Amino acid sequence: MLYLVGLGLADETDITVKGLEVVKKASRVYLEAYTSILLVDQAVLENYYGRPIIVADREMVESNSDEILREADKVDVAFCVVGDPFGATTHTDLVLRARELGIAVKTIPNASIMSGIGAAGLQLYNFGQTVSMVFFTDTWRPSSFYDRIKENRDVGLHTLVLLDIKVKEQSLENMARGRRIYEPPRYMTVGQCASQMLEIEEERKQGVYGPDSLAIGAARVGGRDEKFVAGTLKELCETDDALGPPLHSMVLLGRRAHELERDYAREFSVNKETWDKLWTQYYGKQ
Amino acid sequence: MLYLVGLGLADETDITVKGLEVVKKASRVYLEAYTSILLVDQAVLENYYGRPIIVADREMVESNSDEILREADKVDVAFCVVGDPFGATTHTDLVLRARELGIAVKTIPNASIMSGIGAAGLQLYNFGQTVSMVFFTDTWRPSSFYDRIKENRDVGLHTLVLLDIKVKEQSLENMARGRRIYEPPRYMTVGQCASQMLEIEEERKQGVYGPDSLAIGAARVGGRDEKFVAGTLKELCETDDALGPPLHSMVLLGRRAHELERDYAREFSVNKETWDKLWTQYYGKQ
Repeated sequence: MLYLVGLGLADETDITVKGLEVVKKASRVYLEAYTSILLVDQAVLENYYGRPIIVADREMVESNSDEILREADKVDVAFCVVGDPFGATTHTDLVLRARELGIAVKTIPNASIMSGIGAAGLQLYNFGQTVSMVFFTDTWRPSSFYDRIKENRDVGLHTLVLLDIKVKEQSLENMARGRRIYEPPRYMTVGQCASQMLEIEEERKQGVYGPDSLAIGAARVGGRDEKFVAGTLKELCETDDALGPPLHSMVLLGRRAHELERDYAREFSVNKETWDKLWTQYYGKQ
Repeated sequence: MLYLVGLGLADETDITVKGLEVVKKASRVYLEAYTSILLVDQAVLENYYGRPIIVADREMVESNSDEILREADKVDVAFCVVGDPFGATTHTDLVLRARELGIAVKTIPNASIMSGIGAAGLQLYNFGQTVSMVFFTDTWRPSSFYDRIKENRDVGLHTLVLLDIKVKEQSLENMARGRRIYEPPRYMTVGQCASQMLEIEEERKQGVYGPDSLAIGAARVGGRDEKFVAGTLKELCETDDALGPPLHSMVLLGRRAHELERDYAREFSVNKETWDKLWTQYYGKQ
């Protein structure tokens, strides 16, 4: 059996009791380590599970999935995913391949940032589609997120923005020369996200949002030191110090927000006066 | 401290290790039991946690929250919620009240149907806003879900439909006479949902969806006998026997779907030929 096991959002104790049983008994345990990370190291997990973990990078999952699935028709293999196995990135390919090989698959769900973000005080019913933000480079500034956010904003919905992480990336030079040397990991901050968003609004000029649009920055959601900061996009460009270490994510508010959301998130606001003023002007409308 | 503890979706072992520690040590343990249910009885939970649980019905949470919060500034109180504490219904009011009383609050996230539904093979990025469907009566047939679904369908997104549950409801007569006699619990099925949806399309006639629109019915998501059935809304009116016992939920597909979603969900389809034909005609479009 192939088990897709959700690990939850923060540390080794966020696994479910059911998931922990599977991990303790499985013949092999993989950790998918390129779409998200826990806030603790691999060694902490291995110590807690009482067994070694095989780290599965993108290359292994996408090009060598048969190794992960090896003998899974006879023995149990646990494929662990930070958050929920179907949270941010689905592992549809792996499951389809398992099916082809006649291997049964079972999922152990867990918390995902897509529901955990509710701790920011926003109602999950008021969210539209989720978007991702990647690190811009000089030559690559994909802005399809802008169109998606526009669709959400047009009907008044919030948008959850998931931020890029770069783990085990090679520089172009090392890649060209076939050197397996990897850059240090990078995690996008709320400040970087807010500033890239404003950059694209400058470029596209459709008024989807602006420096005064309200948003909430979130750090380490579900962790013991989870932190939220609410403010305008302009304010959020400068609050990375307050938010602290990764992982970060962000919500851009939609106008169809409820006053309970205002009251709850106000607590996190950089400047309560600005928050109240902008809210009264633009939010809480149908 | 007030702990909001997510219990996950199915049984007593779906709690996280962190959540279980909190529940075992808290001075009082409440179970919110009116917005969703686990697939196991209270006695199973009490036995597993090794302690009694106080069932919190809507009346207690909405009108008597100070009893739940009693002394939570000095002792730990665990307020357990099926799914994620901020999943389907937020408990914003309770947290705001705790803040007024100077009580610290901590959330232990868990799987929610909003991410767990990914096990149906649909990409969570392709979902718009979530809607709820209530049991229609002769005089009350709220159809605001129709407008929300239209907003999602207009841009090609899937819609998760959460289905009504009626727990501890009084008949009008018993309510009028002040008799604390409750009706047996009722859980909406996918068949009932599909048929109410078609009823409202008949009435509103905006062509938001129709009998041939593709959808996926889900039962006991995250449970050991989780079940999906994919088909047209018309087909799903008749598949309750295949889906089995509660809880049910449903996804109405949006046209902006990916071929991996088609292949994954096809496995669950009532009629693979119809599935392929309708998909080719209406789905997988930008």
